[in-house]
Amino acid sequence: MLHTLVILVEDKPGVLNRVASLFRRRAFNIESLTVGHTHTEGLSRMTVTVEGDEHHIERLTSYLYKLVNVIQIEDLTGKQMVTRDLALIKVNTASEKRSEIFQMVEVFRARIVDVTSHSVIVEITGDGEKIDGFVDVLRPLGIVEMVRTGAIAMERGSDSLINTSELLFDSAAVA
Amino acid sequence: MLHTLVILVEDKPGVLNRVASLFRRRAFNIESLTVGHTHTEGLSRMTVTVEGDEHHIERLTSYLYKLVNVIQIEDLTGKQMVTRDLALIKVNTASEKRSEIFQMVEVFRARIVDVTSHSVIVEITGDGEKIDGFVDVLRPLGIVEMVRTGAIAMERGSDSLINTSELLFDSAAVA
Repeated sequence: MLHTLVILVEDKPGVLNRVASLFRRRAFNIESLTVGHTHTEGLSRMTVTVEGDEHHIERLTSYLYKLVNVIQIEDLTGKQMVTRDLALIKVNTASEKRSEIFQMVEVFRARIVDVTSHSVIVEITGDGEKIDGFVDVLRPLGIVEMVRTGAIAMERGSDSLINTSELLFDSAAVA
Repeated sequence: MLHTLVILVEDKPGVLNRVASLFRRRAFNIESLTVGHTHTEGLSRMTVTVEGDEHHIERLTSYLYKLVNVIQIEDLTGKQMVTRDLALIKVNTASEKRSEIFQMVEVFRARIVDVTSHSVIVEITGDGEKIDGFVDVLRPLGIVEMVRTGAIAMERGSDSLINTSELLFDSAAVA
């Protein structure tokens, strides 16, 4: 089963390396991993989708907590959540399929962000399945190049999954 | 100077670990790193923004090429390119600032993807500066939680930066 973990880490050199190396050593099968800033200075947030049963994920969580700079881990699996992935796709529009491509862009609510006489770059956001679907539709029309960010996730509702102000306080107390 | 590197890698276990570990050992200062699938089975594409002068980046490139599973590296710096970052931001709407928040979402062409009586989750894409600007505007209105993917990039125009069909052929020939 695919689990979505949110890992809050201190924004220090080597933290990505430590986390990636843990996944490697313990032979966990990562489907995607992203890391980016939060709204709090000095804190980054990783989103990891990883294959495994409950027991595996519990073990993984305990390993992660042992790493320096790892502050909090939440498993969003089974919760109501928003997941989003972003892709840039360069499509060949020189063929007679040009209008079909533009229609698909509209159907999928994607956005054209660059145009030449021969190609367009399309930006699309959505969950992994939506983007996979869009790629499948565009593939026979001529994809030139594609890049994806991997998934980020957030629990629905008004609660903060991770209370960064409390966490910073705790981490200062520990330091 | 901030450089944007695109690194095409084979989608094999440990490749993220090897790349992250190289950055760590050589003490390169990564601003952001993303990794995601391409439209070609078995190939992933990393986008790394890294601080350094020409000489540093040349050295980094030569180190990267030495790694197993690294197929091609392109420095997009100075080229015409599209860069995009994606953020999900949960904002408190319980205050009297609610309408102001909705106005800002419209001004920045962001999208609301979840609503409760107390909060919204907003999705925004754009280059790093645009998202930073949006966050700065929302911060005094009450950000509850935020997650970002980090930047992905693609060269403008109709050329494919990376010819994956050729590359696969080469890599098969080498294997």
